[in-house]
Amino acid sequence: MAETNHRITLAQRPVGAVTDSCFRADDVDIPTPGPGEMLVEVRWLSIDPTIRGWMAHDTYLPAIEIGAPIRSGGLGTVIESNNDDYPVGSLLFGMTGWQQYAVMDAASQVVPDGVEPEAALSVYGVTGLTAYFGLLDVGRPVAGETVLVSGAAGATGSVVGQIARIKGCRVVGIAGSDEKCAWLTEELGFDAAINYRTDDVAVAMAAACPDGVDVFFDNVGGDILEAAIGNLALRGRIVLCGAIAQYNDETPRPGPANLATLIANRGRMEGFIILDYLDRAAEAMLELAGWVMGGELTYRTDVIDGLDNAPAALERLFTGANQGKVMVRLETS
Amino acid sequence: MAETNHRITLAQRPVGAVTDSCFRADDVDIPTPGPGEMLVEVRWLSIDPTIRGWMAHDTYLPAIEIGAPIRSGGLGTVIESNNDDYPVGSLLFGMTGWQQYAVMDAASQVVPDGVEPEAALSVYGVTGLTAYFGLLDVGRPVAGETVLVSGAAGATGSVVGQIARIKGCRVVGIAGSDEKCAWLTEELGFDAAINYRTDDVAVAMAAACPDGVDVFFDNVGGDILEAAIGNLALRGRIVLCGAIAQYNDETPRPGPANLATLIANRGRMEGFIILDYLDRAAEAMLELAGWVMGGELTYRTDVIDGLDNAPAALERLFTGANQGKVMVRLETS
Repeated sequence: MAETNHRITLAQRPVGAVTDSCFRADDVDIPTPGPGEMLVEVRWLSIDPTIRGWMAHDTYLPAIEIGAPIRSGGLGTVIESNNDDYPVGSLLFGMTGWQQYAVMDAASQVVPDGVEPEAALSVYGVTGLTAYFGLLDVGRPVAGETVLVSGAAGATGSVVGQIARIKGCRVVGIAGSDEKCAWLTEELGFDAAINYRTDDVAVAMAAACPDGVDVFFDNVGGDILEAAIGNLALRGRIVLCGAIAQYNDETPRPGPANLATLIANRGRMEGFIILDYLDRAAEAMLELAGWVMGGELTYRTDVIDGLDNAPAALERLFTGANQGKVMVRLETS
Repeated sequence: MAETNHRITLAQRPVGAVTDSCFRADDVDIPTPGPGEMLVEVRWLSIDPTIRGWMAHDTYLPAIEIGAPIRSGGLGTVIESNNDDYPVGSLLFGMTGWQQYAVMDAASQVVPDGVEPEAALSVYGVTGLTAYFGLLDVGRPVAGETVLVSGAAGATGSVVGQIARIKGCRVVGIAGSDEKCAWLTEELGFDAAINYRTDDVAVAMAAACPDGVDVFFDNVGGDILEAAIGNLALRGRIVLCGAIAQYNDETPRPGPANLATLIANRGRMEGFIILDYLDRAAEAMLELAGWVMGGELTYRTDVIDGLDNAPAALERLFTGANQGKVMVRLETS
């Protein structure tokens, strides 16, 4: 065990893109767990776009305080326990934050033996649950329908597309490079893929979705959302999961000019937050595990080593450099 | 019976506002009903914002052809019948178009004895059904929630607000004059009203809806929609009924810049078209009639006399000069 707790804290709130100046490393005393609590040594961090929102302002959770460690999901091994349900040595998922040591409470979940940390943080973690409930509960696709996914090579999008394929839908993905597009169609079984950096997205979308878009799972927002509204099928559904194209905007950009077409199309656009579904996590994990073990659902992780590289890992999400779920693996003491 | 059929036809498609040059009057032969059809003498026309869309381009119905009479709901008296279900003398509701005589088929509905034409075209017509199903089926308000209505002094909006009040909601209306606002609060029982021409809508909305907007019934679009998104309560619902502020735009205007707030708010935005609900009209009419006869639901009509004044009647909708349902009463021959 180290002598101090090394942390990455919030130095200043981002204005526009997240930059290194938003963060400050420090070393403080290792915290002491109270009654019913556990001290964990943090092993892995889940790097998610929503962290930028938490750094910037109040969202569905209060903003991170200046000087506090960056809020983050993560995995940690229990090294001291005041709770018999969480014995020393067990691996926990919870809000560890960007630090070496964290005090966790009974809201934490034990990662079952045999589940790899990479899987626990991706396909069985918030990412997989977001894909599962967002697509199936909010989007409600029916076999034979066309499902369009933006950020399709990302951690969530790649799982969304595969679930849609498993459920018998035609699946079209939008991603930011030919290599990502090839991965979608050649390895994940997408029916078509659109490179938004080189294709005219609205035109390519119309070609790839000749009967219109029945479900659009949107991780991106911006122009891609507008194009999808323009290609929406009758009674199409738009699942608003994220808007990463806009998170770094210093001033809000105008929204889609074609929203009123939702009237004639009887379209539905709906946002959701995965926190609302955590009490139903077990049903999703069971079905996801069946698909993974049956070889129908694959996932890719983008592992960065070292706590001090967590800021760079977060920045990767916004440049689109990542392919699959971004996570940070901490040094073990 | 006249010797010819006087009509108002589409001369050219509107670009921007509807103007007199879009229309041309003509006189043609009175049509002959085929097997199963009826000839009606048109008595009343329902003047609705959607007519502008039909004039301009394909929507949920094909665009009106140049030279054809303006498509329109209306009431007509059967003067010649080849269908025993629709005897001579009965009053029918259907798509009469802007003309003196129309051939109708079995898709027409007989207006029951005792129902005034003004009521048949407003509270028991498309207007009332739109308010009823849009609010209750799409918006799904719960007693105690806050319901916000734009175009609240209009034909649909005024019924929406009253139904919300009857269902036990706090009701806030947005309208375009102090007189209209006074009518909402003093006569229709709205809890508050906002004059969008003189108030800062977003600020007034926040003040009138301190717990946020649970259901926003939008007839208007544009900046008012953006303000409502910004004031939406957790799990708020936006019913997209119309976007009259935008129908006359020559180029599409940007949409709301704050759409991504629907994610954190778990908001839902959904469009609908009343045609989808016509098979459930009876249940709505029964409940609406109960409220009207019990004095809980009032409506106002804006009657213009003369077929040749139908274009001016339509233009009134877009200037906001009307208060209540706009309809045209034809001369009887």
